[in-house]
Amino acid sequence: MNITFHDIETAHERIKPFIHRTPVFTSHILNERTGGELFFKCENFQKVAAFKARGAFNTVFSLTDAEAKNGVVTHSSGNHAAAVALAARTRGIPAYIVMPENSPQIKKNAVASYGGEIIFCGNTQADRETAAAEVQTRTGATFIHPYNDVRVIAGQGTCAKELVEDTPNLDYVLAPVSGGGLLAGTAIAATYLHPSIKVIGCEPEEADDAFRSLRDGTIYPAITPPRTICDGLRTSLGTLTFPIIQERVSAIHTVSEEAIIRAMRTVWEVMKIIIEPSCAVAVAVVLEKKLEVQGKRVGVILTGGNVDLDKLPWQ
Amino acid sequence: MNITFHDIETAHERIKPFIHRTPVFTSHILNERTGGELFFKCENFQKVAAFKARGAFNTVFSLTDAEAKNGVVTHSSGNHAAAVALAARTRGIPAYIVMPENSPQIKKNAVASYGGEIIFCGNTQADRETAAAEVQTRTGATFIHPYNDVRVIAGQGTCAKELVEDTPNLDYVLAPVSGGGLLAGTAIAATYLHPSIKVIGCEPEEADDAFRSLRDGTIYPAITPPRTICDGLRTSLGTLTFPIIQERVSAIHTVSEEAIIRAMRTVWEVMKIIIEPSCAVAVAVVLEKKLEVQGKRVGVILTGGNVDLDKLPWQ
Repeated sequence: MNITFHDIETAHERIKPFIHRTPVFTSHILNERTGGELFFKCENFQKVAAFKARGAFNTVFSLTDAEAKNGVVTHSSGNHAAAVALAARTRGIPAYIVMPENSPQIKKNAVASYGGEIIFCGNTQADRETAAAEVQTRTGATFIHPYNDVRVIAGQGTCAKELVEDTPNLDYVLAPVSGGGLLAGTAIAATYLHPSIKVIGCEPEEADDAFRSLRDGTIYPAITPPRTICDGLRTSLGTLTFPIIQERVSAIHTVSEEAIIRAMRTVWEVMKIIIEPSCAVAVAVVLEKKLEVQGKRVGVILTGGNVDLDKLPWQ
Repeated sequence: MNITFHDIETAHERIKPFIHRTPVFTSHILNERTGGELFFKCENFQKVAAFKARGAFNTVFSLTDAEAKNGVVTHSSGNHAAAVALAARTRGIPAYIVMPENSPQIKKNAVASYGGEIIFCGNTQADRETAAAEVQTRTGATFIHPYNDVRVIAGQGTCAKELVEDTPNLDYVLAPVSGGGLLAGTAIAATYLHPSIKVIGCEPEEADDAFRSLRDGTIYPAITPPRTICDGLRTSLGTLTFPIIQERVSAIHTVSEEAIIRAMRTVWEVMKIIIEPSCAVAVAVVLEKKLEVQGKRVGVILTGGNVDLDKLPWQ
């Protein structure tokens, strides 16, 4: 299914009443350190503190009344779950969130605080899919995939649309990659608005399936059990996101766990904003000079700020 | 010595090339929780991550070339020290910073990173003053008091000037109080620009000398040894700041250590920005309903974001 910039424009008009046009921050200290001009798109200040609000609101508000009336369902223990719950509550429909029983309490609390109904399941991918299918059958709810959905990809693309509109003449835009919804949406929006821009995916070395998938031209599964602390970057590319990334993304760079933690802490210390590990991966690519940014204008999407403050990764 | 709004305007013109006009953040969640409309002036995003940059730049750039050429000296281990060091480096003059040998390494590093020359001293107030006087005699440097100085008070007042200019019709403005430089400057700027505004000082219960001073009409000394975690709120009011506060501040409210830590964590979790304990005291006054803000428009000065990320107060 083809996704165009027009889909992203339509998504943007649809979700504008509900999301923040997040600010773009700069840092003299990080510019000095890297030699580039860095522009940080602060989705940690987005609703639910993550870009996932964009795709979730676009999908939930794309549904017809008939589709919407029985609610929506997803399986996720992360920011997508919170985003779907909030979007559903905003539309006034139920949200059923399937998550493993052993999910961290902080994740359960987040979903509950946005009004989502939690359905517990076992720990495997199959357990989740079975539980979600059961909810669909029982309730008639519409399933919202976290990334392999045109409406989700178009919603995530609104973030780069704003960044490129607000920050002219970027040489690069960097985004983390997991399932690829954000990276695919970013690539469509950024290359449409500024054709010479290079779109860079950023991934943990310990979860480098997207890097290998792009290199070899085939979708590799995610590494299990997960080895990275980036809890938002543990899935594989989707059948919809992969071809977009093949066509429009210049490169995927990987960074070590140590580099990710260092980058996260640097942003906290220097910029005084809270970002989560899955978000720090894109910062790490720049700070570790995996991508040379000397003299370049570089957009970095800060994807989210949901961190358990009792368990910081440098402690 | 009389300080007027004109002094603050002059200070603002003088320091504008060097400081950030920091953003004013809002939070739907905290508005819902308090019933008020809260406007957070983010001085944690200021140079040196603290409002202290304003007073330091104003003072350093107020000096004649003859006064400036031998540099500046202060005794402080906190944000004022870093601010004086940066302002001096920006003007191209030496900064001598007197601090106790047992100051945390993170504070020494901060001053050094801004180019300040550290002179170690003993732990008492007398030790600091003696050491600073020796530096003055030896180098001819100009002493910059952290708060009891017209130029410092005028500089700190530029923060509330920006806030009131950017946020019309505030009912209240809240700022922490220690030596009173920020609170006095805030009171002059805010009541000049918006005469019906009420200016509120915020103080830890465990360091409530300003509260008692205002109540009894006399300056009480700071509580020693300090009992509060707010390392920026451990000094007493000054002879210049006290009469301004008496004349223009409506009330000083105090909050417990637990409330301060809770407020700090809430801002981190909800707003995804990093604030230090001394800053959280003003947030705590609102969240604990020490000041009832239902239906009111409330400006809160977030004074700084310098925190040792290895020693968080909730751990």
